[in-house]
Amino acid sequence: MSVPATRLAELRDHLAAAGLDGFVVPLTDEHMSEYVGAYAQRLAWLTGFGGSAGSAVVLANRAAIFTDGRYTIQVREQVSAADWEYVLVPQTGMAAWLGEHAQSGAQIGYDPWLHTRGWVEEVTAALARHGATLVAVEANPVDAIWDDRPAPSDARLEPYDEALAGQSSAAKRAVIGDWLTARGADAVVLTALDSIAWTLNVRGADVAHTPVALSYAIVNADGSTDLFVAPEKIDDAVRRHLGNAVRVHDRHAFAYTLADFSGKRVAADPERSVVAILDQLEAGGATIVAERDPVVLAKALKNPAEIAGHRAASVRDGAALARFLRWIEAEAPKGEQTELSAAAKLLTFRQATGVLKDTSFDTISATGANGALPHYHVTEESNAPILPGQLYLVDSGGQYPDGTTDVTRVVPVGEPTPEMRDRFTRVLKGHVAIATAVFPDGTLGGQIDAFARRPLWEAGLDFAHGTGHGIGAYLSVHEGPQRIAAPNYPGGAAMEPLRATMMLSNEPGYYKAGEYGIRIENLVLIEPRQIAGATLDMLGFETLTVCPIERTLIVPEMLTADECAWLDAYHAKVLAVLGPEMDGEDRAWLQAKCAPIRDGAAE
Amino acid sequence: MSVPATRLAELRDHLAAAGLDGFVVPLTDEHMSEYVGAYAQRLAWLTGFGGSAGSAVVLANRAAIFTDGRYTIQVREQVSAADWEYVLVPQTGMAAWLGEHAQSGAQIGYDPWLHTRGWVEEVTAALARHGATLVAVEANPVDAIWDDRPAPSDARLEPYDEALAGQSSAAKRAVIGDWLTARGADAVVLTALDSIAWTLNVRGADVAHTPVALSYAIVNADGSTDLFVAPEKIDDAVRRHLGNAVRVHDRHAFAYTLADFSGKRVAADPERSVVAILDQLEAGGATIVAERDPVVLAKALKNPAEIAGHRAASVRDGAALARFLRWIEAEAPKGEQTELSAAAKLLTFRQATGVLKDTSFDTISATGANGALPHYHVTEESNAPILPGQLYLVDSGGQYPDGTTDVTRVVPVGEPTPEMRDRFTRVLKGHVAIATAVFPDGTLGGQIDAFARRPLWEAGLDFAHGTGHGIGAYLSVHEGPQRIAAPNYPGGAAMEPLRATMMLSNEPGYYKAGEYGIRIENLVLIEPRQIAGATLDMLGFETLTVCPIERTLIVPEMLTADECAWLDAYHAKVLAVLGPEMDGEDRAWLQAKCAPIRDGAAE
Repeated sequence: MSVPATRLAELRDHLAAAGLDGFVVPLTDEHMSEYVGAYAQRLAWLTGFGGSAGSAVVLANRAAIFTDGRYTIQVREQVSAADWEYVLVPQTGMAAWLGEHAQSGAQIGYDPWLHTRGWVEEVTAALARHGATLVAVEANPVDAIWDDRPAPSDARLEPYDEALAGQSSAAKRAVIGDWLTARGADAVVLTALDSIAWTLNVRGADVAHTPVALSYAIVNADGSTDLFVAPEKIDDAVRRHLGNAVRVHDRHAFAYTLADFSGKRVAADPERSVVAILDQLEAGGATIVAERDPVVLAKALKNPAEIAGHRAASVRDGAALARFLRWIEAEAPKGEQTELSAAAKLLTFRQATGVLKDTSFDTISATGANGALPHYHVTEESNAPILPGQLYLVDSGGQYPDGTTDVTRVVPVGEPTPEMRDRFTRVLKGHVAIATAVFPDGTLGGQIDAFARRPLWEAGLDFAHGTGHGIGAYLSVHEGPQRIAAPNYPGGAAMEPLRATMMLSNEPGYYKAGEYGIRIENLVLIEPRQIAGATLDMLGFETLTVCPIERTLIVPEMLTADECAWLDAYHAKVLAVLGPEMDGEDRAWLQAKCAPIRDGAAE
Repeated sequence: MSVPATRLAELRDHLAAAGLDGFVVPLTDEHMSEYVGAYAQRLAWLTGFGGSAGSAVVLANRAAIFTDGRYTIQVREQVSAADWEYVLVPQTGMAAWLGEHAQSGAQIGYDPWLHTRGWVEEVTAALARHGATLVAVEANPVDAIWDDRPAPSDARLEPYDEALAGQSSAAKRAVIGDWLTARGADAVVLTALDSIAWTLNVRGADVAHTPVALSYAIVNADGSTDLFVAPEKIDDAVRRHLGNAVRVHDRHAFAYTLADFSGKRVAADPERSVVAILDQLEAGGATIVAERDPVVLAKALKNPAEIAGHRAASVRDGAALARFLRWIEAEAPKGEQTELSAAAKLLTFRQATGVLKDTSFDTISATGANGALPHYHVTEESNAPILPGQLYLVDSGGQYPDGTTDVTRVVPVGEPTPEMRDRFTRVLKGHVAIATAVFPDGTLGGQIDAFARRPLWEAGLDFAHGTGHGIGAYLSVHEGPQRIAAPNYPGGAAMEPLRATMMLSNEPGYYKAGEYGIRIENLVLIEPRQIAGATLDMLGFETLTVCPIERTLIVPEMLTADECAWLDAYHAKVLAVLGPEMDGEDRAWLQAKCAPIRDGAAE
């Protein structure tokens, strides 16, 4: 992954010529996306860093890369220590580091299309305290030296079937219009790619694993919408689908159009809109109404069609994964499979469904010690043979037209050790504690996170990631605003109230560095719960993912009666739902896997 | 509690004469205290509101009082609806309300000795958006019309024994000096009364139930300290105790002294220092180092002497409370006791210890429906007879020289209903879930809060207050920074990492409006836990409070084996510790109360 040091030197030359003493390179793109198109992967191109959160600063005589605790190891492996200092956030923030290292009088550049205004204000203040200045650049200097920079994707925009979306785009835009009217606002700028795809009932293929298109949208109070997108993405079919109330413009026209709102009140999300957008709006005489993108919560609350679609996708995906699990269980002990060959085989099972659009993220196919890296990504270099005595962990999902899946299972190769079984059972107990949780409407995800950890804590163990993330409906595999995570976990506080019809993952784990990793991940749907005598509106989870949880890794005696009952009911449901999809030996295998855990026939 | 409407009219006349269009009246004092001396209870004097959180705004033609959800009922009972609008925060903040109701051009006054700078900046910005201005007043206009305003207390400052404090003031001040040096700061302003008392090993009697003195302190990097306090509080004994490194000044000199730090770096806590202090420092040429008061965390981490003191106080206080419980159990069914008579009787048991300094807060002596008000305060008007069929709840504590206690128990008068027993048992399960929790060093209190709620949630129930608060060592009964509370609970996020040697309350409850209240409160100490095979530094709780938990309210079949084991072990400890303090019938009663819950002799 290491990159030529000449890139850094070239950037410094370019900065010096431009009269800049430094430049900030974030990971994000102009949509503040989690996943970024190849054309916008400036941080990776410059530093070699391949993680999903980070940023860098280049000064004349030093350079630093900022990552959080999840990437402590990865950044050292991928980024040259000779050229870059490793700085751990939040221990040291970029503003603090710049305040310390920028010279008095220094001009530090930033690209206003890649940062929020909050970031600009924080860093400006930190630099001002040391006599330095943050200055917006007209064109990104990384792009100027990035000779073979990929062009943005030119994939077509496609209509998304209203039967799957569950609501017409016009109806969605009318709700946004009402939302604007309630705030006395004239329009809202949508910059998040999944918000735009959801609002217009369209899908794209510009970002790996996420069916969105590079675009901006401005929804007006009357529901009419201006969509800014590369002309080559638009054909007659999608134009008809969008209808007359959606005016299509060239994506390049977006920045100029922002100047046309003189005297208007325009809503924009300070977390999702880059500072250039806010600046252009204000320069044109608009008043900004700072509000969260109204689509964020709207698309998190799934409608009946989206839920039905997800159920169908879950059955299809669960059957594919179950077939793979039977295959790996038989093949792995022979010692001839690798992480890559297994991932490829899993893909064939998903492809055999006939409706797979893409995987929903790079499959985490990790054996032995690689499983202990929660964000492991198998490459040709890292590819490890799957060997007896190991645990094999597979975290994967599919993008289907009716739903996005995400599931993790662990399989022992040969006989697992007692420690592995103890740890797996603790993770399972945590998983069940979430699956069976009942809680008042509006409880924060951060409040229930520790239910998943208590069985591990009792053994002095934990896992260093959140317990659950939201998920899109044939959209992003990670979708906010709801999460199940401790408030101090990297990625922000899980301060969104949990509400009925939200979907989340439930994925506690345990990682023993250098040895093995365990994670049990199902997707869950929040549903209302009727409880006799209740004084509050209560919610609970319905588990959506259907695939057996490996029984040979469970120590039945460690489960309470209630935990056993949950597991047996879950497996009974898996058998009932997947059984009809399976034939012959597959079905016999499934029946054995789904037998009751205590009194069933142990394998 | 209602107050004459003439006060509001007089204030308006006074404001008009001063050229002000409005004025803000917060609850707090110039130390940002939780409990406020009578001389500073301007909000209560003006509005009649007696809660512990709130504020008011007076405009020429309207006035509003702002309280949170805990005081929804109380504010309606105590504050005249004819004169005041009730505004619920955080739904509507004061800044938003002022922005809506202040006229363009209005001058809204505030007392800079009663607000933080953060508040001033927020309200200034909100007013500016509507063309109004926030202006600091020289003298508080409420004081100008408050004819019979009490003088500040003139109670003496008293030395606090170093054997109880566990550390000399010089040693504490040296640590603060090191903390300043590490930040390149010259001095720190201490404004929190308990921080000053802790740092100087002194105690006072100026605030009800809290042994602190009205004072300010400035600790310098060399550990020398300037103490600002009314001269009549100082005698030779305390002057000797303070020593030469503590220079005593008149409290009135504090404001002027702040101008003497030209060119110096002075640490001040933006949450605990009022804006007047920051303004005076800056006007005098000082640079402010905005940091949390260094004493806040230091005094939360109890030293061995403080812990030993608290243990001794717990035994003494537990024996007094146990004697009271035996008394109320015998007397209440006769129907002749009231909430006030019971509270008075409880006080006699605590006084009989011979070392009680004060109760640690107004005793909550609440029977029947009054128990359902978590912040109930019995008065002559509210005083209810304790009658058969009720639950009687008593939440109380003592200030002893060696420790501050806080404990809640519930006693049935006659036969409790099955529902009462079910609810009590759920609260107990939540209490045990906290008492037995094991968690990594640094876990936030907000992460474990839901352990206390899950047994109630399973029945569709909850309690609307935090699970635990910190507690002082012969200081405030509520002491930060640590808490066990959901991040969205009024009172702020529980974002302080839990650390060994912190003390907290563990007090889940259940409240059935109009019928009864339940709360089980013990104090706990955080201690390190050694766990075989642990990969993390783990913590757990030792329960410090020793007093039986009423067994007739427990449904043994609802407890797991582990919960039973905890309860039996707890009662065995109570018996072992309190038994030697008890004689004759008291002891026999205690033995019966502490028998094992399942196989012991039921009563």
